Amino acid sequence: MRQAQHRLLIETPRRGLVEITRPVLAWVESTGLRDGLLTAFIRHTSASLLIQENADAEVQRDLERFLARLVPDGDPLFRHAAEGSDDMPAHVRSVLTQTQISIPLQRGALLLGTWQGLYVYEHRLRGHRREVALHLLGD
Amino acid sequence: MRQAQHRLLIETPRRGLVEITRPVLAWVESTGLRDGLLTAFIRHTSASLLIQENADAEVQRDLERFLARLVPDGDPLFRHAAEGSDDMPAHVRSVLTQTQISIPLQRGALLLGTWQGLYVYEHRLRGHRREVALHLLGD
Amino acid sequence: MRQAQHRLLIETPRRGLVEITRPVLAWVESTGLRDGLLTAFIRHTSASLLIQENADAEVQRDLERFLARLVPDGDPLFRHAAEGSDDMPAHVRSVLTQTQISIPLQRGALLLGTWQGLYVYEHRLRGHRREVALHLLGD
Repeated sequence: MRQAQHRLLIETPRRGLVEITRPVLAWVESTGLRDGLLTAFIRHTSASLLIQENADAEVQRDLERFLARLVPDGDPLFRHAAEGSDDMPAHVRSVLTQTQISIPLQRGALLLGTWQGLYVYEHRLRGHRREVALHLLGD
Repeated sequence: MRQAQHRLLIETPRRGLVEITRPVLAWVESTGLRDGLLTAFIRHTSASLLIQENADAEVQRDLERFLARLVPDGDPLFRHAAEGSDDMPAHVRSVLTQTQISIPLQRGALLLGTWQGLYVYEHRLRGHRREVALHLLGD
Repeated sequence: MRQAQHRLLIETPRRGLVEITRPVLAWVESTGLRDGLLTAFIRHTSASLLIQENADAEVQRDLERFLARLVPDGDPLFRHAAEGSDDMPAHVRSVLTQTQISIPLQRGALLLGTWQGLYVYEHRLRGHRREVALHLLGD
């Protein structure tokens, strides 16, 4: 049993989802580990992680429309607005989604379902440089 | 230190919660591991995992009523409707709950609290065959 | 590779966030492990775990205002009210946040981002004694 760690740097272009399944898989393969547990942890409070359908891009747009309605930018409820009207909504969206996701690895394959992809969700309107810590433990 | 993996197949009857605490515990016991970390990962984007109270069934019905109001079936906001008016709401409900949950194991007991149960939440109106990957690492 | 476990007892004063970053770090250091995966698991269904900004306390108050509006105490939608008008909302808030969070540990440092803190979120109006199980696996 051994472990490996890595940092993934993602330049998000703007608010929305950026799929990271491929670079995560590439790193997992590079470790030589074939069975274990992969953990992805995003080091931010205004961007988050998500597993969602990777087949129809409309799903991602609908999800964005839902969150934009649920947590409106510029909502007068929010007093923390020094960094902009999208800042506090970004924190709330992060809380409602995930900061960390672990996925089992079996015989060299991450056990993502057929339609599952792993995403970084940028919640700020403008793009940012985001850091995802990857940890893998196994054989 | 060693690891074990398993797949749990759950036939959900319809939208709602299906408790899986018992089959998960049975598998954990069968591995012979007594201290470690159990991870459950659901391989779907329209069903999710949840830890909730297992004492009063009314809690589950209230939770369902809350989610049905928060993410209404057939909401005109959603354009991804090819698979039915409950499809996109099922994705959103999955995002708002969990795809993966890890629970420490100590001296042969999962550290669930007195009132905690582990559940699969079927978010589609009709039942489906759902797959939960289990991973256990420990001694 | 070895593992360590611990229970953190938190007396929450009332509804709201209690930061636990410091006692978690202190325990991690006491184990002597320097690289691995830390898992925190809260053994309750009306309190939860959260990673959020620890810089501006207004973020926490805004988050509380958002959740109080999204899941109102005493909502007639809820029938499970035996323990009070804040009981079912506390379960829903727990479902919408996290019961478990894992954080990688590298060279003796938890990989929390600059602005990230780990919190217990008390969702009941009155304070409670809460138990967080900590599990650490590594070298």
